[in-house]
Amino acid sequence: MLLIKRLGIDDARVLIAGARAKAEEIGVPMCIAIADESGQLIAFERMDGGKVTSTTIAQDKAFTAAGAKRTTESYGAASQPGQPAYGINSAIGGRLSVVAGGIPILVDNQVVGAIGISSGTPAQDSLCAQAGIDKFTDTL
Amino acid sequence: MLLIKRLGIDDARVLIAGARAKAEEIGVPMCIAIADESGQLIAFERMDGGKVTSTTIAQDKAFTAAGAKRTTESYGAASQPGQPAYGINSAIGGRLSVVAGGIPILVDNQVVGAIGISSGTPAQDSLCAQAGIDKFTDTL
Amino acid sequence: MLLIKRLGIDDARVLIAGARAKAEEIGVPMCIAIADESGQLIAFERMDGGKVTSTTIAQDKAFTAAGAKRTTESYGAASQPGQPAYGINSAIGGRLSVVAGGIPILVDNQVVGAIGISSGTPAQDSLCAQAGIDKFTDTL
Amino acid sequence: MLLIKRLGIDDARVLIAGARAKAEEIGVPMCIAIADESGQLIAFERMDGGKVTSTTIAQDKAFTAAGAKRTTESYGAASQPGQPAYGINSAIGGRLSVVAGGIPILVDNQVVGAIGISSGTPAQDSLCAQAGIDKFTDTL
Repeated sequence: MLLIKRLGIDDARVLIAGARAKAEEIGVPMCIAIADESGQLIAFERMDGGKVTSTTIAQDKAFTAAGAKRTTESYGAASQPGQPAYGINSAIGGRLSVVAGGIPILVDNQVVGAIGISSGTPAQDSLCAQAGIDKFTDTL
Repeated sequence: MLLIKRLGIDDARVLIAGARAKAEEIGVPMCIAIADESGQLIAFERMDGGKVTSTTIAQDKAFTAAGAKRTTESYGAASQPGQPAYGINSAIGGRLSVVAGGIPILVDNQVVGAIGISSGTPAQDSLCAQAGIDKFTDTL
Repeated sequence: MLLIKRLGIDDARVLIAGARAKAEEIGVPMCIAIADESGQLIAFERMDGGKVTSTTIAQDKAFTAAGAKRTTESYGAASQPGQPAYGINSAIGGRLSVVAGGIPILVDNQVVGAIGISSGTPAQDSLCAQAGIDKFTDTL
Repeated sequence: MLLIKRLGIDDARVLIAGARAKAEEIGVPMCIAIADESGQLIAFERMDGGKVTSTTIAQDKAFTAAGAKRTTESYGAASQPGQPAYGINSAIGGRLSVVAGGIPILVDNQVVGAIGISSGTPAQDSLCAQAGIDKFTDTL
């Protein structure tokens, strides 16, 4: 039997609040998704003006970062033409995201969930995702 | 040119809070989804203990109620064997939900979005969905 | 933060062995799937002669029983025409199984995973699923 | 009339055991899938700590290697920009894997099935897949 640490809904709200504050600061309305350590959705918010396409993309970034235990940005590098994971972007019905903005959340060196953000540039998405994690880490 | 009334993220949070309060009252942890008038997800929360399968089902109930401008429960009646909408439950890749728990939200007789809830019995899901709408209506 | 109990691969092998022994006893080669408490596949075996269609169905039964925390058989009753969950069988892209053979596995009153079996009659599938759980329970 | 050679469940277990031993040796918990010559799943194991996303990817690598009778790695080369199979990674709903780790299994110059592995680097995945085949070949 395994014993697993997992984000709860209260944790998810802190993560979203941290990401949203940064999104407001940079003036980009975002879609923000929080997945548990199995990649299942815990919470989601589309800020007013967030992109409809990003509704799915943010969820898939969180799913990927949680399930694969790595940033979606790292997959972006690993899946360039000629690189070892080339072509992986269409895996799992296209849910495996290789665009920056999905970051796993670690507690005691275990992945307990992930945050996925979409609507800005990938760099903006990552910035806000990290801001969510920073706020969450401050509360631990 | 059309002018569309649509729920915003602040409205979505009120709807979720109202549904969650009722869910806590009856002791059933729920998945709660809010869609806009186009059926696109605005916000989602899975209460601790909510069902993983309901993560998708709650979203699809909100999608159906918003997009079709009717309760998912009404589709349950209309899709019984021998009824006119028989078989519609597998439409749109199975996203068209005919199980109670999805209710459109009207403002000035216009559908502005919908709430979809899953994890309890369909009657419990509907009860909590209506509680969310009631709380939202009180704030108007 | 939540703390979750989950089946490990050693547990999954015990469950499969118990189910397989019963399947051999009744002479029906089965597809046997074990999911964790989030519905994610841990282990699978198709016995020689098991049905190809059951490869997917067994996995979906395990997914449903784990994710919804109830037997797929109970969904069969609840989803009959005129019943509250009518039409739920096509939810989640058709992955929500309402055919007997998927049973959640509880330890200390928590769902830690599920077993899903397919290839025989639904009654035979359930019989073998329960045999797997019985063998697992004996090892605790 | 055709006569088809196909892996049985006993063969599949030998293949998994060989792959798992190598995975333990290199310290990377893997998802290991065995498909028959038609690409249909025979057996699967997710080692404790294997990635949730790899649950699907390992199966799709085995499916691709068996169905196309070639390594998924060879598809990686053939699907680079400007190459003849460019874009094939999104075929079959994204199930056609072009990432190393899927290897067909030949007996008497016939494909009798395939092994697909995921959770490590593609090179690690291939290493463990080959280790499974080597162990299987030793038993023939």
